[in-house]
Amino acid sequence: MMSSQSVPSASPHEFDRLLESIHSAHRDNRAGALADYIPELAKASPDDFGLAIATVGGRLHIAGDAEVPFTIQSISKAFTFCLALELTGRDTVLTRVGVEPSGDAFNAIIFDAVGKKPFNPMVNAGAITIAGLLCETLGASAFDFVLDRFSQAAGRPLTLDETVYRSEAETGHRNRAIAHLLLANDVLKVSPDEALDLYFRQCSIRVTASDLARMGATLANMGENPVTGRAAFELRAVRNTLAVMFTCGMYDYAGNWAYDIGVPAKSGVGGGILGVVNRQLGIATYSPRLDARGNSVRGIASFEMLGEELGLHAFDCTNMGSSFVSTLIR
Amino acid sequence: MMSSQSVPSASPHEFDRLLESIHSAHRDNRAGALADYIPELAKASPDDFGLAIATVGGRLHIAGDAEVPFTIQSISKAFTFCLALELTGRDTVLTRVGVEPSGDAFNAIIFDAVGKKPFNPMVNAGAITIAGLLCETLGASAFDFVLDRFSQAAGRPLTLDETVYRSEAETGHRNRAIAHLLLANDVLKVSPDEALDLYFRQCSIRVTASDLARMGATLANMGENPVTGRAAFELRAVRNTLAVMFTCGMYDYAGNWAYDIGVPAKSGVGGGILGVVNRQLGIATYSPRLDARGNSVRGIASFEMLGEELGLHAFDCTNMGSSFVSTLIR
Amino acid sequence: MMSSQSVPSASPHEFDRLLESIHSAHRDNRAGALADYIPELAKASPDDFGLAIATVGGRLHIAGDAEVPFTIQSISKAFTFCLALELTGRDTVLTRVGVEPSGDAFNAIIFDAVGKKPFNPMVNAGAITIAGLLCETLGASAFDFVLDRFSQAAGRPLTLDETVYRSEAETGHRNRAIAHLLLANDVLKVSPDEALDLYFRQCSIRVTASDLARMGATLANMGENPVTGRAAFELRAVRNTLAVMFTCGMYDYAGNWAYDIGVPAKSGVGGGILGVVNRQLGIATYSPRLDARGNSVRGIASFEMLGEELGLHAFDCTNMGSSFVSTLIR
Amino acid sequence: MMSSQSVPSASPHEFDRLLESIHSAHRDNRAGALADYIPELAKASPDDFGLAIATVGGRLHIAGDAEVPFTIQSISKAFTFCLALELTGRDTVLTRVGVEPSGDAFNAIIFDAVGKKPFNPMVNAGAITIAGLLCETLGASAFDFVLDRFSQAAGRPLTLDETVYRSEAETGHRNRAIAHLLLANDVLKVSPDEALDLYFRQCSIRVTASDLARMGATLANMGENPVTGRAAFELRAVRNTLAVMFTCGMYDYAGNWAYDIGVPAKSGVGGGILGVVNRQLGIATYSPRLDARGNSVRGIASFEMLGEELGLHAFDCTNMGSSFVSTLIR
Repeated sequence: MMSSQSVPSASPHEFDRLLESIHSAHRDNRAGALADYIPELAKASPDDFGLAIATVGGRLHIAGDAEVPFTIQSISKAFTFCLALELTGRDTVLTRVGVEPSGDAFNAIIFDAVGKKPFNPMVNAGAITIAGLLCETLGASAFDFVLDRFSQAAGRPLTLDETVYRSEAETGHRNRAIAHLLLANDVLKVSPDEALDLYFRQCSIRVTASDLARMGATLANMGENPVTGRAAFELRAVRNTLAVMFTCGMYDYAGNWAYDIGVPAKSGVGGGILGVVNRQLGIATYSPRLDARGNSVRGIASFEMLGEELGLHAFDCTNMGSSFVSTLIR
Repeated sequence: MMSSQSVPSASPHEFDRLLESIHSAHRDNRAGALADYIPELAKASPDDFGLAIATVGGRLHIAGDAEVPFTIQSISKAFTFCLALELTGRDTVLTRVGVEPSGDAFNAIIFDAVGKKPFNPMVNAGAITIAGLLCETLGASAFDFVLDRFSQAAGRPLTLDETVYRSEAETGHRNRAIAHLLLANDVLKVSPDEALDLYFRQCSIRVTASDLARMGATLANMGENPVTGRAAFELRAVRNTLAVMFTCGMYDYAGNWAYDIGVPAKSGVGGGILGVVNRQLGIATYSPRLDARGNSVRGIASFEMLGEELGLHAFDCTNMGSSFVSTLIR
Repeated sequence: MMSSQSVPSASPHEFDRLLESIHSAHRDNRAGALADYIPELAKASPDDFGLAIATVGGRLHIAGDAEVPFTIQSISKAFTFCLALELTGRDTVLTRVGVEPSGDAFNAIIFDAVGKKPFNPMVNAGAITIAGLLCETLGASAFDFVLDRFSQAAGRPLTLDETVYRSEAETGHRNRAIAHLLLANDVLKVSPDEALDLYFRQCSIRVTASDLARMGATLANMGENPVTGRAAFELRAVRNTLAVMFTCGMYDYAGNWAYDIGVPAKSGVGGGILGVVNRQLGIATYSPRLDARGNSVRGIASFEMLGEELGLHAFDCTNMGSSFVSTLIR
Repeated sequence: MMSSQSVPSASPHEFDRLLESIHSAHRDNRAGALADYIPELAKASPDDFGLAIATVGGRLHIAGDAEVPFTIQSISKAFTFCLALELTGRDTVLTRVGVEPSGDAFNAIIFDAVGKKPFNPMVNAGAITIAGLLCETLGASAFDFVLDRFSQAAGRPLTLDETVYRSEAETGHRNRAIAHLLLANDVLKVSPDEALDLYFRQCSIRVTASDLARMGATLANMGENPVTGRAAFELRAVRNTLAVMFTCGMYDYAGNWAYDIGVPAKSGVGGGILGVVNRQLGIATYSPRLDARGNSVRGIASFEMLGEELGLHAFDCTNMGSSFVSTLIR
């Protein structure tokens, strides 16, 4: 009924070869459509396709348009959640936002009827709540703090895309509705304008696939950037962040992702997907054509192929957790 | 911001000591109430409290009432899902039942509006669908097959609790409603009576905490019973089963469990909880007083303490996946 | 801003002329589709189109296929509700089923979360509950009682369409699911089989548009058949029945119907629609092509035209309630 | 089974006697609680209890605190809907808001999933949409227009309660959320601030039970104030308004109200309830203690008694529509 499967014996250049082969395999896939809910997102180059793997040993492997900038969008939610845990503690965070997957779309306006709070920090309602909590704690410097930590994680100074930010701020009526509802439910303690301003800004931070992979490797490396050796996130907060990414990171596709890919991940409507292999890798894809759930079509296909080749699934039976650590990562 | 944490250096007898300390810590916790939705379940001894850890090396560690029999109830859902994957394949299974956590209660009658199928195999609707699929494939021998495989996993012949089975069959009106709805939605292809009979039987299989721990160790051991060396489950199906247990195993508490405990798990209203540490351990608790979500109160408390002590969380940053494997397990 | 409108001065033959003109106006409208959820319904002649008006004075006016038989289907729900009110009283009925419009489709399986009972007796769940209540009260003679009263209302002996009845009984999985759920919620006190058998039978009673119009005139005439002078329904129950028909009779189109047509009404998937102008008229249309909500397309169009011409709307400002009573009805 | 019931032979002073007896019967009923969702509402005198009947003949009958002012709150929704129908026409109004009862609470944030618009104009979402439509049509003069028409209907100049208005504007987070959601769904075409300002103002208009009864009599009198003879509302719009009041006016109690009382009505959290007997009466009650659904406790009890005594139910079988018109009203 079952057979023993040999442990993958990849070498560093194998990551390069693997990324190239994935890039070739999916380059011609033009399924999906650009996000158009804010005008600026619809201006992305639809054919861009970048892949990057960053290891906890500090290596970076890329293929395609891995240096093309795009806005981080909802992937920021994982990192701001991690920062809120560090700044205000697990208990405070949990009074404001749950950690239950809800099966709802990213922009669902329905809250947990019992807890009267957003289901989890990966849907918009939860992320706006977390933004409000950061504002509450940090005041006017909240965005500078976020940008600084994101930059520490990426290992280089990141910047805000002012045009996307303004576009989001002007058109985010549904998010504004959500923020007022959070205020009505008493889980938002600052003004909707203040929380939304941070939220729209954090979503408009410009990254590349390489940056995202580095940021993922920082999570995989217990919060410490593998290249600079500087801490960007708190150790314990990282564990909780990865757990929520695993159960809630891919919207109403989260369960399927956990089933098939099996790594903590987060996607954004800018076209990025970030995956984290704990203690080993940050993996990022960039391709702006999205499926109906708002996930990058080529990104999901790439992760499927990558996961299959490397045996990344958290519950893969044939990898003893971290089999390729020593040979490939450092 | 972060400190390196020393790798736990437990020894086999440390498991015994740990189980004893957990048993002492929670023995006097009488919170919660017996399940009473079927009369037979309300006859359990409310104070029973058993703990068991089975390793992939074949060891068994127990504390308290680990040899008291109770009915497996919903914990069976994880194993029948695994068997359906083996018998009919991933694609067939996914046409009948999704793998998305829904945030709903175990007995929710709401299906995925898009897919017109149950959200996942861990809620009743999904488990009845899986039972129907097993009947469809195996015909009249379906229950014998299930009982045989469960017994292989436990390493001893398990038996049916006829009284509980009859009690469930007589009072399961809501499950009967669900089965007819599955038929109406064309995801059930056998008669409701046939699928429900298997479902009520599989739920009424008698196990002890020791049995459950062994069954979990069989999953952790790539589907092979660590003591007998005989295969009970298919390798690839195990991975998928563990993934769904992780995201959906604890009903509407699944996200919190993933966040705090972080191991694939499944609970049953009989009072059992099963957790699996991939490639290492099966862990089982038995205590029949349940919280409002239907999970064992002392069971959850025990897993929290155990997880903290052993660093079991799948996304714990300080364990390199399988740190205590060699020293403790074999 | 407003002008006084002359009171309609119709005479009996004006009803005939009006029905003829409506028949001509909509005869060529072939929009909509036959119900196909049970095979037998799909065998109706799609072009059949009958209209009938029965007055409380005993007159009958018809046009088109007003003598073609079809099954009464959900229109029966209004009459069985009326009978349950008579037999068991307002209070008993209200403990089992609400009277709130729900905005849901006719076959919704969601119950009022507070009351744990169906929203109203015009959706399937409520009608099956009422069928159960009739069985509870009348035992094995329930259907004979229903058929007798329906026949009294129509003024001639009605019969059961055995083929449709058997077809419904064989394929009604969703209704069976609903019945088991009613049992689980303790609002059904007889077996699902018993309640469903009555429900499927009552839906399979054969009527013509003329019959339906007579049945409506019986309601309009305080429960007494205008021709035979014999009572079919209880006075007080009639009022409550008309109220629920007004708010809930047309499924999720009920509000629009109340807004535009404004008479108590009930439609069935067999193609009939019954409207009641209190103290004056029973109006029936038959045309089996249905819109997406399950209402007859030509039926709705006919009622719109009829309502406009006769000023039937319950809240029409220009009719002093019963303006045409004396001149046209007797 | 049924008996003929004598037509009520009330005389004008019988209305007075009836109101007095109702007032006595319910004066000591202190069930319910003041609305406290805005601080100002909690300052009402909880024991106030006023009753008023205004006839289309111009008479006014009162009992108790019928001249105590309170804010009209949601009762304004019926009148602004009527004005929107007059100004923009039935078709335009229906593109923005439905007319289906939803079974939801007054402040539900869920919209009709198909139409992407509020279910009906009597829930907050629908009323804010209507306010937006009035702003769109009338610009800055919208509130003056509304106040003028309300005053025409009442027959005296009404005024704004500035304190309540400011209190609503400061605390209406949930309504602000709804307005932004309406904007996101493109059914609101002016800014949320503009629509909400009108909405909060219209809700803060001060009326007495006598005023409300007069306003109801104006609706009953085809839109024309019975005393002044001046038109306040358009004839055709009145019919549609009464229909929507009948099906949706009492929130999630609308169906029960239609069943038991059976007159078009609208309640407000200020403590008022308005009922309209078409072509005959406006009836108003004022008592600020509310039940769980937001309806005045003594108001509902008073209407029940009044309806029973006068046979007001729209589908009462024993009244030929307008039986007491000539004797009592003029």
